[in-house]
Amino acid sequence: MTMTPTDTASLNDTMNAMGARARKASALLVKAGPEARTKALKAMANRIRENADMIIAANAKDMEAARAKDLTPSLLDRLELSAARLESIAQGLESVSEIADPVGDVLASWERPNGLQISRVRGPIGVIGIIYESRPNVTADAGSLCVRSGNAAILRGGSESVHSATAITAALQDGLADAGLPRDAVQMVPTTDRAAVGFMLKGLSGNLDVIIPRGGKSLVARVQEEARVPVIGHLEGLCHTYVHESADPVKAIEIVSNAKMRRTGICGATETLLIDASVASELLPKIAKSLQELGCELRGNDKAQAIVPMIAATEEDWRTEYLAPTISIKVVTDITEALEHVQTYSSGHTEAILAEDTAAAERFLNEIDASIVMHNASTQFADGGEFGMGAEIGIATGRLHARGPVGAEQLTIFKYMVRGNGQTRPS
Amino acid sequence: MTMTPTDTASLNDTMNAMGARARKASALLVKAGPEARTKALKAMANRIRENADMIIAANAKDMEAARAKDLTPSLLDRLELSAARLESIAQGLESVSEIADPVGDVLASWERPNGLQISRVRGPIGVIGIIYESRPNVTADAGSLCVRSGNAAILRGGSESVHSATAITAALQDGLADAGLPRDAVQMVPTTDRAAVGFMLKGLSGNLDVIIPRGGKSLVARVQEEARVPVIGHLEGLCHTYVHESADPVKAIEIVSNAKMRRTGICGATETLLIDASVASELLPKIAKSLQELGCELRGNDKAQAIVPMIAATEEDWRTEYLAPTISIKVVTDITEALEHVQTYSSGHTEAILAEDTAAAERFLNEIDASIVMHNASTQFADGGEFGMGAEIGIATGRLHARGPVGAEQLTIFKYMVRGNGQTRPS
Repeated sequence: MTMTPTDTASLNDTMNAMGARARKASALLVKAGPEARTKALKAMANRIRENADMIIAANAKDMEAARAKDLTPSLLDRLELSAARLESIAQGLESVSEIADPVGDVLASWERPNGLQISRVRGPIGVIGIIYESRPNVTADAGSLCVRSGNAAILRGGSESVHSATAITAALQDGLADAGLPRDAVQMVPTTDRAAVGFMLKGLSGNLDVIIPRGGKSLVARVQEEARVPVIGHLEGLCHTYVHESADPVKAIEIVSNAKMRRTGICGATETLLIDASVASELLPKIAKSLQELGCELRGNDKAQAIVPMIAATEEDWRTEYLAPTISIKVVTDITEALEHVQTYSSGHTEAILAEDTAAAERFLNEIDASIVMHNASTQFADGGEFGMGAEIGIATGRLHARGPVGAEQLTIFKYMVRGNGQTRPS
Repeated sequence: MTMTPTDTASLNDTMNAMGARARKASALLVKAGPEARTKALKAMANRIRENADMIIAANAKDMEAARAKDLTPSLLDRLELSAARLESIAQGLESVSEIADPVGDVLASWERPNGLQISRVRGPIGVIGIIYESRPNVTADAGSLCVRSGNAAILRGGSESVHSATAITAALQDGLADAGLPRDAVQMVPTTDRAAVGFMLKGLSGNLDVIIPRGGKSLVARVQEEARVPVIGHLEGLCHTYVHESADPVKAIEIVSNAKMRRTGICGATETLLIDASVASELLPKIAKSLQELGCELRGNDKAQAIVPMIAATEEDWRTEYLAPTISIKVVTDITEALEHVQTYSSGHTEAILAEDTAAAERFLNEIDASIVMHNASTQFADGGEFGMGAEIGIATGRLHARGPVGAEQLTIFKYMVRGNGQTRPS
């Protein structure tokens, strides 16, 4: 759909009006208090259940259009909503209703020698823009985490899921209304026109405080490049699992296989295996066998190829987030070489060491600078739900505000309240 | 000084090399531990004292050039360093050496049902760029807060203070070396060429994580507009003081006079006075008299003019950060009108209510969304030193990462450490 300049101007007005309504809705969410927000989240879950047939009918329209466009089976699978998947969305809303409400938390407080009482108090960021691709459940995850934290959400889903996401948003808005909260606290951009994304990236005249992109690398790269408001997110998850010479062999085989092959398309999947030379000749064949039985292709450095027949890994492989059943393998001299490799190629997402030697593990946890560093666990645990946050709106790899899974608490900022009894500042 | 393309390319290389060295220096600062950072900060103070004559001689060159350029007396005053001012810089370094070292703080930790131990641990942001104007003491404040928090600093001072800032930086670097820490942890951009700022705004090839501008509105606006890395700072401080009908009259006169007139050029100075109509006829004349005796010009709305003769305030006045002995005054009907005015015109910096009615005060503190909200105190307390942070690198009014005074703790981010004993994620 192309738009005339008048249409674009009118879309700009529409988007700015959404931003202004969102700003007001956020203030009302805060004023209403934590119980009202909890009530709304539970009501949202009920409305999803009550409207399940309608949402599935809307989803059927998206599925039909997607089949006509010859989308891949994996994209069709992401898009499809069943009764079971809707029940899981409803349960997700309920679990967000149960997590602690962060608004008003006093993070610190102290008294100054002059008697001023200073406290640092949590509140919402304000208005959060979420730009995402086909998976319709993101609508509920993002909307609910924003409401939990007193933020208004402006959602922009992928064009493939427009009917599904609109139906889910309507159910969320009904839940808000059930609790006496403004429907504008969760709004969906009413068009698939890409110009709408452009207006969001410009910040809706000051009424959009942060953008969270959730989708493939090209979407995130565009958002990071063009946004004039802050962006929270991650470009890629090039995760490493390092098998230290002290690793328990049985755990190593299980964890590496899980970290790579449980699901290969998620950002927490391991893409590169590093293994100490002193144990590689014994252990690498077993790990390789397990990976190959799960359907994984192996690519290795010279030392790895000398132990197990595999394709040669190139420099490009160390830099590649496969998101596919392929792994690059490097046999390293020792932990120093492993740390250097990770520091060089890490995307700052999730990095793991498998070791029984605690000193080696602590060195890795301290020296590796990534959002998540793990010891003796699968990198596939890099997820807000697995961290106990109820849900996540994404994973952040930037160096400001938040890193790792972004839950309700990470959607807040603080302000200072200063209480005095007449203090003036000496000159 | 104009540069040929070759010079610009070579400056770009120089700047990128500074960034790469800063990145390494930050890692070394972290590894060295908190005691080494404390030792370096104390050594910096000693080096400032030892090199006082040299620094004052360098400052004399800047002063000579500044007088030749006919800078205003207030700018000359900001620029000038005396023995007393250097001693105050040395004491500032010592007070930063005494504040708690934030690196490695465990902000939260919990165990998941599957046994995973998760902790959220503080660490430095990494490399901080500070772009500032003439005041040479910013060099020491910024450098010391970065070292305290494990960050490397890349400083770009104003051209007027180049000799002074370079001499202070050399003393800070000597202090780092005394403690066995890398001199590259605090670097000064070695040229006054404006192209250097442009390279910083582009992020030094990924080796500059955040920029903190400290200076006038045009500097901050340029940085906010052009930066491709996150910016922490504030554009202006349009601060309000609201005198509620329950205010103690004596406190109100003292606080308003201090908030406006203690120093008119700082961002925490009050620019607009709001006062309830029910007490204005009695109280406003007394406040006005005190302000006028201190040399303040008054501009008011119709109701204010009806009580005290003054210039008419225009819409423009409500939007103006005077940074001068001028105040705009609005007599309001009640707290609701006061809240509306503040919400409309606030720059999100510091807002104060003077009231003996605690409910009114709490309503103001909760509903006004600014970095700092105050009750019965002067807005001139908006300052990291006054908050007990040892020093500040600036004040933030954005809605991500930090708000209010930015001290060592606000120059940190966290990562997650996950400790397991063999966990794999179920499918």
